[in-house]
Amino acid sequence: MSELLVEVVRGPLVESRHLGDIAVVDTEGRVLWSAGNPHRVTYARSSAKPLQALPLVESGAADAFGMSDEEIALACASHSGEEAHTERVLAFLQRIGIHSSHLRCGAHPPYHAPSYERLLRSGASPEAIHNNCSGKHAGMLALAKFLGADLDTYLEPDHPVQRLILQAVAEVTGVPEEDIVLGTDGCGVPVFGLPQDRLARAYAHFSAPSATVLGTRRAAAMERIARAMVSHPHLVAGTERFCTDLMCAGQGTVLGKAGAEGVYCAGVMGKGIGLCVKVDDGNARAAYPAVVETLAQAGLVPEAVVSKLQAFRRPQLRNHAGTWVGEIRPAFQLSKH
Amino acid sequence: MSELLVEVVRGPLVESRHLGDIAVVDTEGRVLWSAGNPHRVTYARSSAKPLQALPLVESGAADAFGMSDEEIALACASHSGEEAHTERVLAFLQRIGIHSSHLRCGAHPPYHAPSYERLLRSGASPEAIHNNCSGKHAGMLALAKFLGADLDTYLEPDHPVQRLILQAVAEVTGVPEEDIVLGTDGCGVPVFGLPQDRLARAYAHFSAPSATVLGTRRAAAMERIARAMVSHPHLVAGTERFCTDLMCAGQGTVLGKAGAEGVYCAGVMGKGIGLCVKVDDGNARAAYPAVVETLAQAGLVPEAVVSKLQAFRRPQLRNHAGTWVGEIRPAFQLSKH
Repeated sequence: MSELLVEVVRGPLVESRHLGDIAVVDTEGRVLWSAGNPHRVTYARSSAKPLQALPLVESGAADAFGMSDEEIALACASHSGEEAHTERVLAFLQRIGIHSSHLRCGAHPPYHAPSYERLLRSGASPEAIHNNCSGKHAGMLALAKFLGADLDTYLEPDHPVQRLILQAVAEVTGVPEEDIVLGTDGCGVPVFGLPQDRLARAYAHFSAPSATVLGTRRAAAMERIARAMVSHPHLVAGTERFCTDLMCAGQGTVLGKAGAEGVYCAGVMGKGIGLCVKVDDGNARAAYPAVVETLAQAGLVPEAVVSKLQAFRRPQLRNHAGTWVGEIRPAFQLSKH
Repeated sequence: MSELLVEVVRGPLVESRHLGDIAVVDTEGRVLWSAGNPHRVTYARSSAKPLQALPLVESGAADAFGMSDEEIALACASHSGEEAHTERVLAFLQRIGIHSSHLRCGAHPPYHAPSYERLLRSGASPEAIHNNCSGKHAGMLALAKFLGADLDTYLEPDHPVQRLILQAVAEVTGVPEEDIVLGTDGCGVPVFGLPQDRLARAYAHFSAPSATVLGTRRAAAMERIARAMVSHPHLVAGTERFCTDLMCAGQGTVLGKAGAEGVYCAGVMGKGIGLCVKVDDGNARAAYPAVVETLAQAGLVPEAVVSKLQAFRRPQLRNHAGTWVGEIRPAFQLSKH
């Protein structure tokens, strides 16, 4: 049911192809535009992070710990492990009295190559704080502490933190808890398998949270999280990352968050419209062109925003010596519903 | 025309899927087994390296420079930039009196993470010698020097080195030069767009070079190149790389060489059988399971070889903390012709 989304061209030949599925929906979950199967069930992966931050804010934990918008943006981040990220997460953990050794996300090198180089040249090695999910894990630890729950087992699906998160995900997507497929994410926490249109619906809510529909507390939390992310694009991802450049280009009009395996969710701020892209083969290089192309085709953001994102919409491929060898280009037409 | 080759499973859900095409052929190019479209035209990428080494050997350059099997294996390598690779390529260039600054492949970090770490910790930075193609470029430089051709323009399609290579590729695959699609590879040299069955045919010849069919000189060159690669699997790729582990497991029964964008070619030594896998979306993570599954389904190598390759046939996915989260598994059935 997936359809061709993106082609990878080298010289005169289409060398590789990426299939996938796209859903663009409103806050009631109505599909407005689609490609492939907009109801495809897939894991939200890190696109769930803004949802996973909801209990942190709604519980009062964020206020109790005096969390700044920057710290909330980091709780929703897949950051590049730059100093701007790691220092803020470390400072937050220190302030709330939790040692970084409590982070259970595991270690991997910073995505940001120059930061990785500096780290190694300084004689240090990657630690959990450099994991792109360390801000989310810090947020989960903060909530655990606020709830008086165990700090060592916060990854477990039956831990109070994860129970609250699953409940929030179910409510915001409109999918009953028992219908959400549970797996384990790269960083150890539960991941949520959901129809793409339902995931997109959550982002539609983030883009225009209605107190009438969502209740005052939830609407306020969604507004705060969305504002934090849109106001601090660099903290949500990092240097030369799509999420960051998308939200910078959008200047407040777009909220965007990538997930592993070619997932991307975005909300069109103020419009009550959300989208979810899933690349069938899991490659992010096709998700970014598909997202920009979707925003352009459906006319969801001003032309000026789209034109700033041309390098992501149609990336030009160069070899190690810098010579042009090909391009990645969108190859789909959205269906209007 | 591509068909489902490999599934990526996380928890209870198939999260991602890889389509592709497979051709298994004999030395006459007859398709013995296939999946998807065995005649799909795709770039050989680095799977062309053993073919690109043919003029180096056939011209007499390899003998003139006293090239060892190790050095020929490196000329066919996509190496990991480990010291075992870079020191040998540097020593070869030094011996034949060519400075490494002539390498036009561009620089990228060694694939082998510990080697990259050591490099940075030593205060150095990646150079052209660490490029996975530096052995191939050293071989091209050697041929250029032997021919008395220009050392600075050996990347150009009309350079004598590239002319000889194109001619050899045409002859060994049975595709006329004018029908070969030309693009530019990541390292700057021409790449060859060919039907998969024709690429596989070249590997069938490598696996059992017949002097009657190929002529004495070519058959001897193919035998020498294949022997060099099969005898030095670590030099063809590196630590924990599929090409290396495949040829180690094969103990002389398999010749294998990966190419970028999910291409893989292999020859079944002594049998006159070659195969070519192309993953439609270009992801190598699906090519390796597809290759092992193909060898197993078509009964091309002993069971003992296949069982040593289980970790590539069905890779188990673990998160950064080491917990099992899913697997990658073959999901196709070859058609017998």
